[in-house]
Amino acid sequence: MSTYAARLAALREQLSRQRLDGFVVPLTDEHMSEYVGAYAQRLAWLTGFQGSAGTAVVLPQEAAIFTDGRYTLQVREQVSADDWQFVGVPDSSVAQWLGTHAGAGARIGYDPWLHTRAWVDEARAALAGVGAELVAVDGNPVDAVWPDRPAPSAAPLTVQPDALAGRSSASKRADVADWLTTVGAKATVIAALDSIAWLFNVRGADVARTPVALSYAIVHRDGTADLYVAPEKMTSQVAEHLGNAVRVHDRAAFAAALDGLAGRRVAIDPALAVSAIFDRVERGGGTALALRDPTVVAKATKNPVEIAGHRAASLRDGAALTRFLRWIADEAPRGGQTEWSAAAKLEAFRRETGALRDLSFDAISATGPHGAIPHYHVTEESNLPIENGQLYLIDSGGQYQDGTTDVTRVVPIGTPSAEMRDRYTRVLKGHIALATATFPRGTTGAQLDTLARLPLWQAGLDFAHGTGHGVGSFLAVHEGPARIAKPSYGGNGPFEPLLPGMILSNEPGYYKAGEYGIRIENLLLVVERELPGGEAVMLGFETLTLAPLDRDLIDPALLTDGELMWLNAYHARVAEELSRVLEGEDARWLASRCSPVAR
Amino acid sequence: MSTYAARLAALREQLSRQRLDGFVVPLTDEHMSEYVGAYAQRLAWLTGFQGSAGTAVVLPQEAAIFTDGRYTLQVREQVSADDWQFVGVPDSSVAQWLGTHAGAGARIGYDPWLHTRAWVDEARAALAGVGAELVAVDGNPVDAVWPDRPAPSAAPLTVQPDALAGRSSASKRADVADWLTTVGAKATVIAALDSIAWLFNVRGADVARTPVALSYAIVHRDGTADLYVAPEKMTSQVAEHLGNAVRVHDRAAFAAALDGLAGRRVAIDPALAVSAIFDRVERGGGTALALRDPTVVAKATKNPVEIAGHRAASLRDGAALTRFLRWIADEAPRGGQTEWSAAAKLEAFRRETGALRDLSFDAISATGPHGAIPHYHVTEESNLPIENGQLYLIDSGGQYQDGTTDVTRVVPIGTPSAEMRDRYTRVLKGHIALATATFPRGTTGAQLDTLARLPLWQAGLDFAHGTGHGVGSFLAVHEGPARIAKPSYGGNGPFEPLLPGMILSNEPGYYKAGEYGIRIENLLLVVERELPGGEAVMLGFETLTLAPLDRDLIDPALLTDGELMWLNAYHARVAEELSRVLEGEDARWLASRCSPVAR
Repeated sequence: MSTYAARLAALREQLSRQRLDGFVVPLTDEHMSEYVGAYAQRLAWLTGFQGSAGTAVVLPQEAAIFTDGRYTLQVREQVSADDWQFVGVPDSSVAQWLGTHAGAGARIGYDPWLHTRAWVDEARAALAGVGAELVAVDGNPVDAVWPDRPAPSAAPLTVQPDALAGRSSASKRADVADWLTTVGAKATVIAALDSIAWLFNVRGADVARTPVALSYAIVHRDGTADLYVAPEKMTSQVAEHLGNAVRVHDRAAFAAALDGLAGRRVAIDPALAVSAIFDRVERGGGTALALRDPTVVAKATKNPVEIAGHRAASLRDGAALTRFLRWIADEAPRGGQTEWSAAAKLEAFRRETGALRDLSFDAISATGPHGAIPHYHVTEESNLPIENGQLYLIDSGGQYQDGTTDVTRVVPIGTPSAEMRDRYTRVLKGHIALATATFPRGTTGAQLDTLARLPLWQAGLDFAHGTGHGVGSFLAVHEGPARIAKPSYGGNGPFEPLLPGMILSNEPGYYKAGEYGIRIENLLLVVERELPGGEAVMLGFETLTLAPLDRDLIDPALLTDGELMWLNAYHARVAEELSRVLEGEDARWLASRCSPVAR
Repeated sequence: MSTYAARLAALREQLSRQRLDGFVVPLTDEHMSEYVGAYAQRLAWLTGFQGSAGTAVVLPQEAAIFTDGRYTLQVREQVSADDWQFVGVPDSSVAQWLGTHAGAGARIGYDPWLHTRAWVDEARAALAGVGAELVAVDGNPVDAVWPDRPAPSAAPLTVQPDALAGRSSASKRADVADWLTTVGAKATVIAALDSIAWLFNVRGADVARTPVALSYAIVHRDGTADLYVAPEKMTSQVAEHLGNAVRVHDRAAFAAALDGLAGRRVAIDPALAVSAIFDRVERGGGTALALRDPTVVAKATKNPVEIAGHRAASLRDGAALTRFLRWIADEAPRGGQTEWSAAAKLEAFRRETGALRDLSFDAISATGPHGAIPHYHVTEESNLPIENGQLYLIDSGGQYQDGTTDVTRVVPIGTPSAEMRDRYTRVLKGHIALATATFPRGTTGAQLDTLARLPLWQAGLDFAHGTGHGVGSFLAVHEGPARIAKPSYGGNGPFEPLLPGMILSNEPGYYKAGEYGIRIENLLLVVERELPGGEAVMLGFETLTLAPLDRDLIDPALLTDGELMWLNAYHARVAEELSRVLEGEDARWLASRCSPVAR
């Protein structure tokens, strides 16, 4: 295996062969995915960086890696400072850096299948400012020097039955066709993998933790579609399920197929489709309309069948988590358990349900000081023993065919300190405030985020992450378009109106660096709420997640009557619903943990 | 006096003389002021419309008047449907309407001294779409046919002493000069009247209810300035106060003076300066930099002297309002009082302080159903008697040399209904939630607005206006840049971080159309708040306004312990502070109205 220095040198040679003075290496795939397959892990191969977000830029004499605040320390541990400069975003950006480091006349390459048009425009403008040029490459130069690059996954497509999807693909495509008529387009290119999975009621296994398949789709105004997917992924069941109105082609034929849209107006989502798609449609004589992917809101607003699925998944997943919580309450104080062993045990409980298809993300199993790192990921090297006096935080979820889960609980090992109880109770107050909010149609996550933070703010505290993200139906655990977050969070998520049927996480936290972390996360369903005497039908939330909150961490003296009422009602519901699926000691333990808390 | 139809015909003849096929008549002045002098009331002269916001467009065969939701009814009462079409904004806009109603080749005139550049760009683009042209006029055609148009006010400038302003004009100009160095500009044009008044520590009387003078200023990098103001406004005191570093010129010389900026980079605020200023600077060979007026944030963040002034004004104004509240509690049930007589009585109490310079706006004196119109303005025709069973709402304020006030109270005439008490108490809960909020630096009004609405939302109710606006120091009662409002409010106000020293109103309400209106308004000062055990210095509010809330409208059963504590602490403070300035029966009445409320 070559050294990272040798890889960088090889890439520079390749750039010189391609007559380039630089190249940009982002961490994404041709679908702008958040999680990508091994074949697309170019940044990790080139630099050694293992984080989930970052970009590298290679120039003849310098190279830089761009990461956000989460990875400030990690990037310095994993990437050699001899070869790489470390640049923080959003303080700087690739475009800004190129605008000051690229020389006049330089030709900086980029792979048009790995960037949005907005990125290309910004980088091009910055380079133009110094007389340099941004050049689209034909064939990624990293791939040319990566000898053992993995092939894309060959995992087969599977059918997501209408009985679980709640609607047929034909009905969904008919809605897309109606929308095409409304916006005056002949066709739309769907590039996001979860949009395609939802639209065709299929799933895949090409990306870790998200059941999607590498594919593209073009949907036409007559409701028919072209689906581009590797032929080895097709099965006879999938072919039968898709039917004659869906023409299946090799994914390799997708780019050329865009030429076939000549003379037509084609809707393409500029946030989800890479610039190469826009370029090819326009070069081929089509007109690209930059419009939001028409499946995004439809997918986010779950139908009654999907909601029933989420309820069933929450019950099953909550039972597994409850068994784990009892196990760790018994085992951890005896010693001998670690972050790694605990995560494995929880996964085993989830597997015992017989319904787990995958985890929905790598569990954040974090004890003591690791809990204060919101995106901590346990590795063999980082693995800590779970010890007395610590708080143990477990943020995890499962992919079930009827729903995706995401839940965080905190367990005190031994007796928690008064400060830990104070902080936990404040986080709980924020969690309850959001869970019980009522709000008019049109309200956005930016407006509700404050409710989850106020009890911390009142004590001079806060947490440095969003409060909630959308969750898919046996799809991505981070799903657009809405978010509950500060307006400054970035992107449009905080400004998307919440709509009935959306599922969002409710996960305020508190983090004391070097000591402990707290987060309480349940999933919420947005529901309509008709109030006696009210002047408008309002919206509110129903909590889907079913698992006990640790009563030893709650200081009831800090709770209002209303908050205490919510807590006891939630626990009564958890105990009652989970008693249908838990047995023996597990059921008895849960009942005792869910008995009313009093002041 | 000519009829409105005759005025419209005269304008059309004038347009034809100026070879124009249309003209746009906004309601503003050459400073983009919210309130304008009589000389600039072109919209009212042309159409008869008396509202505070609107625009008219005159074409050869059609004419349209554009107003927002507040004036949907009023515009139809005041303006003739024979001659005018009524168009609602923001559903439509002048640009949009012109884009469909102007014919190909049409020349549509606008006065470049009455529009921002953003407006001009939008209208120009819309007209270009139909092959029509937007043409800047030299001399407003309305003025050409308005024979008895009032002259601009000749009121003298007055000095706002440093002892009240808290800082000298020289020190403020030095800060502007430093800022010019930072942004790389040689000079800045200040066009907003309140910015000029603040920067030079002068006041005027050219605009109703806002103590500003018609003027322009150019501030240079050496801290000197050119002030353009009608010579008859100057007095020897003002000249002495301004000193040698401020060169005073006739306001009529301002436009030509912009030519003198040739070859320089000049900072101009695109939201506060009209397009003619940009045009003239650029035509003269200068480079216009679109940057925020450097006085906006400095003016909004009051210094300790200004804060002390606001406290003194609040005490004085609160005493006058308390005398009025006692008077109306005694008089109204006996009958014979009207919205008009009550407003006059309150003004008289304010005048008796001996310190009132002006009202800060025309009082909203609204009884019964009129209370449900948030921007109601009593006229001779609309004036209603105040009757038993009604809620009487009074939203008013004063201009004092040490501070500007704005306060709303509601008084039940006789016994209020259970619903009125429920609604008033919910509005109060929202008011308290905002008044007691603690929040990190960087927090914006959009994030806090929710707190004031949640108790209404929880009952299926809401109010259709912003929650808070900035207030000046003996300046505009509506002052930028920050607002507490929903993100959808419009403009950037809801996204401006709140800063220590800002003064904002806290005015949630509830309105039942045709029956009653409720609003509780106090002014808040943004203060730093250091919390024991907190990890960051937070911000919070201190309530400045001192006047009792009507205890008969409060249902204490709906208040939490914390809310009841706030109410009683506020009332104790009101009683204590106002007892220093109230006497006899007034003091005794106040004490009884401020005694603790219990459940």
